[in-house]
Amino acid sequence: MKKRPLILVTNDDGITAPGIRKLVQVMQSLGDVVVVAPDSPQSGKGHAITLDATLYVNRAHTYTNTTPEYECSGTPADCVKLAIKEVLKRKPDLCVSGINHGSNASINVIYSGTMSAAVEAGIEGIPSIGFSLLDYDWDANFEGLEPYVKSIASNVLKNGLPDGVVLNVNFPKRGKNPYKGIKIARQARANWNEKFDKRVNPQGKQYYWLTGDFENLDGGEDTDEFALENNYVSVVPVQFDLTAHHFIQTLNSWEL
Amino acid sequence: MKKRPLILVTNDDGITAPGIRKLVQVMQSLGDVVVVAPDSPQSGKGHAITLDATLYVNRAHTYTNTTPEYECSGTPADCVKLAIKEVLKRKPDLCVSGINHGSNASINVIYSGTMSAAVEAGIEGIPSIGFSLLDYDWDANFEGLEPYVKSIASNVLKNGLPDGVVLNVNFPKRGKNPYKGIKIARQARANWNEKFDKRVNPQGKQYYWLTGDFENLDGGEDTDEFALENNYVSVVPVQFDLTAHHFIQTLNSWEL
Repeated sequence: MKKRPLILVTNDDGITAPGIRKLVQVMQSLGDVVVVAPDSPQSGKGHAITLDATLYVNRAHTYTNTTPEYECSGTPADCVKLAIKEVLKRKPDLCVSGINHGSNASINVIYSGTMSAAVEAGIEGIPSIGFSLLDYDWDANFEGLEPYVKSIASNVLKNGLPDGVVLNVNFPKRGKNPYKGIKIARQARANWNEKFDKRVNPQGKQYYWLTGDFENLDGGEDTDEFALENNYVSVVPVQFDLTAHHFIQTLNSWEL
Repeated sequence: MKKRPLILVTNDDGITAPGIRKLVQVMQSLGDVVVVAPDSPQSGKGHAITLDATLYVNRAHTYTNTTPEYECSGTPADCVKLAIKEVLKRKPDLCVSGINHGSNASINVIYSGTMSAAVEAGIEGIPSIGFSLLDYDWDANFEGLEPYVKSIASNVLKNGLPDGVVLNVNFPKRGKNPYKGIKIARQARANWNEKFDKRVNPQGKQYYWLTGDFENLDGGEDTDEFALENNYVSVVPVQFDLTAHHFIQTLNSWEL
């Protein structure tokens, strides 16, 4: 019989988030799970790594009896690096990150700690998936996600992923109707229209809170945003070779 | 006569870094410069944004008399957002970030605060360039960079950049010989071989420092790493549509 796969689970909402609890539960049906996740919320940390501060890793005893769990003081990318080099005894067969409380579709992939953890594992040559639900609530409704999470993870375990590619999976917020299925999609062209909320602190000094409205600038029907708006689960293959290959020829014609 | 272009200058090493001073000086010959840069070092912050903390912006009086300069308590991406929405009176014609003390070639682009600032401006539709020197020293030698910085920035001001593309410019560390010229390149496939430096704090608790060795896994002669090793300035066009378009067809054939 084939050995059970080793699955690393992480996230960016922190080890106590309901989303990671759900992900751990689903992964336990597919393999041997080890959790290495941030000890505090790390949303919006992008691909930050900790260069100028110390990192702590503690065994977390409170969650499951069967699964080793570790909480780390760093960013999601730090967690993956520490898991691979210091915590796990061998390279995992799969890394899953999430389930994030909130969208990582379209341009959000750039800011996402969840996806950066998945990308970090991808850089290390580990097949990797980020899962997110379009519901920012701590008590988000994760009902109905399980078969999709399981099917996508099983397929990645079976087929692997090409070098340099990880998956970005987003689920629509749960409404009355069940999801219509999965759409393989591309990242929609979109933007955040930032609005800074200006306030004055008790010492009389002005400060800002970053807020904003999401704006989908992409009319395409093959995008993640289109899939999600139509109650499909979106799966976008994401790469970390950022080269804009299509522009190299033009650049070569510039007089530099 | 055409109006002088408005140029936003930022970085990730902080507003007092010699690299940004050099960049300000070169940009002053090309247009009206405004600096909005972090008030503290932000290396390795990737595309982090500040969602859970306050942001401050202060006029910095100490640097130049002719150029308005602002220091911001956030990440490089925060600086660009704040500059565009709160500090500048109109959308800048160019955003330049750097000159970073250290490489942002190959996989470093993912972790780089310098490049994330450039990407953030790109997302906002502003032609944008990140500049980095392969010298981590605070007293890095910026001699000989100026004509290249000026030529690349002038070309971007003249030609613009396509939607969704920014430039990642890296300079070899200065040796005895002058740079051989510019190579348009692609991002080399590379990796950091992390080594965690394990220590024990005064309270007896174990902690880690993230360290590591850079490993170029790419034998290609069209990469940024190859250009830099051969004393060329590398220019990589970078995109923030992360979709791995080449894998969409295969994914569609999976039984999901």
